[in-house]
Amino acid sequence: MKGKQYEAAMAPMRAQLVAMARWARTTGQRIVVLFEGRDTAGKGGAIRAVSEKLNPRQCHIVALAKPTEAEQTQWYFQRYIQHLPSAGEIMLFDRSWYNRAGVEKVMGYADPAQVARFLDQVPTFEKMLVDDGILLFKYWLTTDQAQQEERLRERLDDPLKRWKLSPIDLAARDKYDSYTDAREAMLAATHSEWAPWTLVDFNDQKRGRLTLVRNLLERLPETHVAPPEIHFPELGREPRAERYSVLQPIESYPV
Amino acid sequence: MKGKQYEAAMAPMRAQLVAMARWARTTGQRIVVLFEGRDTAGKGGAIRAVSEKLNPRQCHIVALAKPTEAEQTQWYFQRYIQHLPSAGEIMLFDRSWYNRAGVEKVMGYADPAQVARFLDQVPTFEKMLVDDGILLFKYWLTTDQAQQEERLRERLDDPLKRWKLSPIDLAARDKYDSYTDAREAMLAATHSEWAPWTLVDFNDQKRGRLTLVRNLLERLPETHVAPPEIHFPELGREPRAERYSVLQPIESYPV
Amino acid sequence: MKGKQYEAAMAPMRAQLVAMARWARTTGQRIVVLFEGRDTAGKGGAIRAVSEKLNPRQCHIVALAKPTEAEQTQWYFQRYIQHLPSAGEIMLFDRSWYNRAGVEKVMGYADPAQVARFLDQVPTFEKMLVDDGILLFKYWLTTDQAQQEERLRERLDDPLKRWKLSPIDLAARDKYDSYTDAREAMLAATHSEWAPWTLVDFNDQKRGRLTLVRNLLERLPETHVAPPEIHFPELGREPRAERYSVLQPIESYPV
Amino acid sequence: MKGKQYEAAMAPMRAQLVAMARWARTTGQRIVVLFEGRDTAGKGGAIRAVSEKLNPRQCHIVALAKPTEAEQTQWYFQRYIQHLPSAGEIMLFDRSWYNRAGVEKVMGYADPAQVARFLDQVPTFEKMLVDDGILLFKYWLTTDQAQQEERLRERLDDPLKRWKLSPIDLAARDKYDSYTDAREAMLAATHSEWAPWTLVDFNDQKRGRLTLVRNLLERLPETHVAPPEIHFPELGREPRAERYSVLQPIESYPV
Repeated sequence: MKGKQYEAAMAPMRAQLVAMARWARTTGQRIVVLFEGRDTAGKGGAIRAVSEKLNPRQCHIVALAKPTEAEQTQWYFQRYIQHLPSAGEIMLFDRSWYNRAGVEKVMGYADPAQVARFLDQVPTFEKMLVDDGILLFKYWLTTDQAQQEERLRERLDDPLKRWKLSPIDLAARDKYDSYTDAREAMLAATHSEWAPWTLVDFNDQKRGRLTLVRNLLERLPETHVAPPEIHFPELGREPRAERYSVLQPIESYPV
Repeated sequence: MKGKQYEAAMAPMRAQLVAMARWARTTGQRIVVLFEGRDTAGKGGAIRAVSEKLNPRQCHIVALAKPTEAEQTQWYFQRYIQHLPSAGEIMLFDRSWYNRAGVEKVMGYADPAQVARFLDQVPTFEKMLVDDGILLFKYWLTTDQAQQEERLRERLDDPLKRWKLSPIDLAARDKYDSYTDAREAMLAATHSEWAPWTLVDFNDQKRGRLTLVRNLLERLPETHVAPPEIHFPELGREPRAERYSVLQPIESYPV
Repeated sequence: MKGKQYEAAMAPMRAQLVAMARWARTTGQRIVVLFEGRDTAGKGGAIRAVSEKLNPRQCHIVALAKPTEAEQTQWYFQRYIQHLPSAGEIMLFDRSWYNRAGVEKVMGYADPAQVARFLDQVPTFEKMLVDDGILLFKYWLTTDQAQQEERLRERLDDPLKRWKLSPIDLAARDKYDSYTDAREAMLAATHSEWAPWTLVDFNDQKRGRLTLVRNLLERLPETHVAPPEIHFPELGREPRAERYSVLQPIESYPV
Repeated sequence: MKGKQYEAAMAPMRAQLVAMARWARTTGQRIVVLFEGRDTAGKGGAIRAVSEKLNPRQCHIVALAKPTEAEQTQWYFQRYIQHLPSAGEIMLFDRSWYNRAGVEKVMGYADPAQVARFLDQVPTFEKMLVDDGILLFKYWLTTDQAQQEERLRERLDDPLKRWKLSPIDLAARDKYDSYTDAREAMLAATHSEWAPWTLVDFNDQKRGRLTLVRNLLERLPETHVAPPEIHFPELGREPRAERYSVLQPIESYPV
């Protein structure tokens, strides 16, 4: 998909995302969106597509570091639960509790009993959140390995993206099928009536973002809330200019 | 400044920001950047310019909500200190402890004694951080009121930006000079040898961002760290395709 | 019960509590004990009876303040979950999530729908903790109103206890039956196979403490872990005395 | 000192501590008490002497675990600052930031540059807290090695106290003088006008506790605040008895 076409399609949805945020703020809705998926699928870009026009004091990105030693011994969900939303908040999880059924399972960081317990608990856990009124959306971004290889190469070659290339990514190249199997097992266990999964094809990342955002917007209830009336009178005098006594601005970048 | 010119100038600096992040990660540097400034100056855009290519698990944006009742009675710096960096982290403060000497002073949320105590403590506080090895950068983004008025109008008229228009912004229109005075008093008290302020003219926001980022990069020590060698062999077989058994991806957005 | 008899009975159990703590530390067990009950029943004293000989870095008392405005809009369990134990920790909850089915219900701080949802969720929630390996003990301390009245009077008259007398306590005097009803409804909904309740008669507080501690100890699995061998050689020289150059100790309280 | 004498002396001071807490609550005072001292001196007992009659929702004991890896790279004071009080709170630190100048220095966990920076920063840091209105008390509990040896032996022999005997304690036996030197250097650097140290002789622990508490009480300003009038009418009917439908209390411990 071309950039121009993408822009034309995304523009009206940006306005709808902003409307969603106003609605959440006004009505006290709490929104959680999980972004999971194949490495290189484009989770970061999808999160940016949702968040870029929203108030960073309302819409938070949750990208947890690896657990501390103490956290590793706690109830698995504990450190995620700290980031569940208050009234009006939108929490975008860049990876989530599903780590346990994905990378942790495939790479052997969690043992089979831990994975089994996780898959057993997660529908119940999510039901509690949904019953509590949290709006929970779960997206899994898919990509064929041909695209994945291309993007890994790009990460290798592009200095801007090199940091994204981790040893785990490389190890994952030989485990594409294991990740597929893990995902399917995870879907079988956790695609519930109250918290269904949505798979989105990210072989074309721009289309993928449009698809995901459109889906999110369509699944929301009516979000129209008129913005508050604002009285914005004429200033009634010349606008002031900046005035400096202690320090001057540094020299501006040349045009 | 035109978008094309901006892109051409920003592109190499993006690579340097990524290099900065690698250096911080590798050497354990801790970086704090404060973004303060006139309402509508463009703090959000400047923060995005710094952060957009960095790892969100390394580079965090700190945008605190208003303090709780309990926090209001604590030592003023306490809730900010929780967000100071660990080794390798880059913390971008979207507003900061300087609220006390700006909006809180001008709008009367803090009384003169609190403001005076703040201005008295802040150089000492910052010296402790700098002596501890934290790299602290303090930017104040300036804008004449003519531009500010224009941007406020735009917030009023553009549904995407309407949420940025708060009652405080409107009240601030009549207080442009008070904000200037507050800033000058703040600079006089807190522009220190160890934690100097940098004023950046954001009448042109694109130029402002370039100016700010260039300044940040120039003030860093040598940040070159070679990225780790990565062995990336041929896959040696056909790449796999996605395979679905439980759920299919939803229909993609039409091209 | 007389103090002497109490001491004689408690002494060996203190040693067993210490053994329990060593076992928890050595084997990584996580222990949660909830102390609920009638106002004035003696929760504080019971908690002290369990904790007094234990390491305060291992055995923590969780006595949460009333929720902030933001917390009030979160998933109800969220602020409690932050205090669930890491490996080796013992968490004693001085009141707990059951507030919702007790004081919040009776005093009208939670509406019937919230209480119903709570009672519906709590067995599931607790099952997740227990399945995760947390040892969960739930005690409810009972007291007849005659004793309660006496203790309230004592709080009124004894300056050391006056702070314990809150307006809610006084309001509760007319609601003794409502609290009973609320407890019975709570027991009916949350006395589960995996997380049973234990009612302990605290009309005699000393007996109550002995009863509770004995029950806790009996329900633990074998906790014997030999303390590590410690080599404690003779000092081999005269022990040193304190030596002061900057400051002298203040004058000691006269014998 | 005999137990009877101790009780007689402590009783009126307990009432004064309760008065102090009421005063803090009513006037919004924030109180911080640091308990430092020789191993085995009796910090735990001194903390209990202060806290035992106070509301655990107001008076908190801060006994931090060893820092995580991330915390070790943060500004040293950061993890302590999270526990500074809100209005009305009393925070009792069981060890404190002074670890750096004591155990960390003597055992080599902190290097000389870190210790020097700490000693340099701490008076400034404490001045900020005191200027902010926090009431800061710093106690160092002293004990001759003869007593220390006796108490270590007791920890070895008494199963209730065995957990208190750590490898560090044993290593410290040969370092009594190093600890003395470290303390003296610490006092020289941090005994300030605004945050003075108080040394208390704990060779006799009961006397030590009385001495410490008396000193604390004497240094407070007038703390008298009349407790709120409470209207406590007759109940006007027979008091209710407990009534059980779901579960019966377990059998009480035999008298």
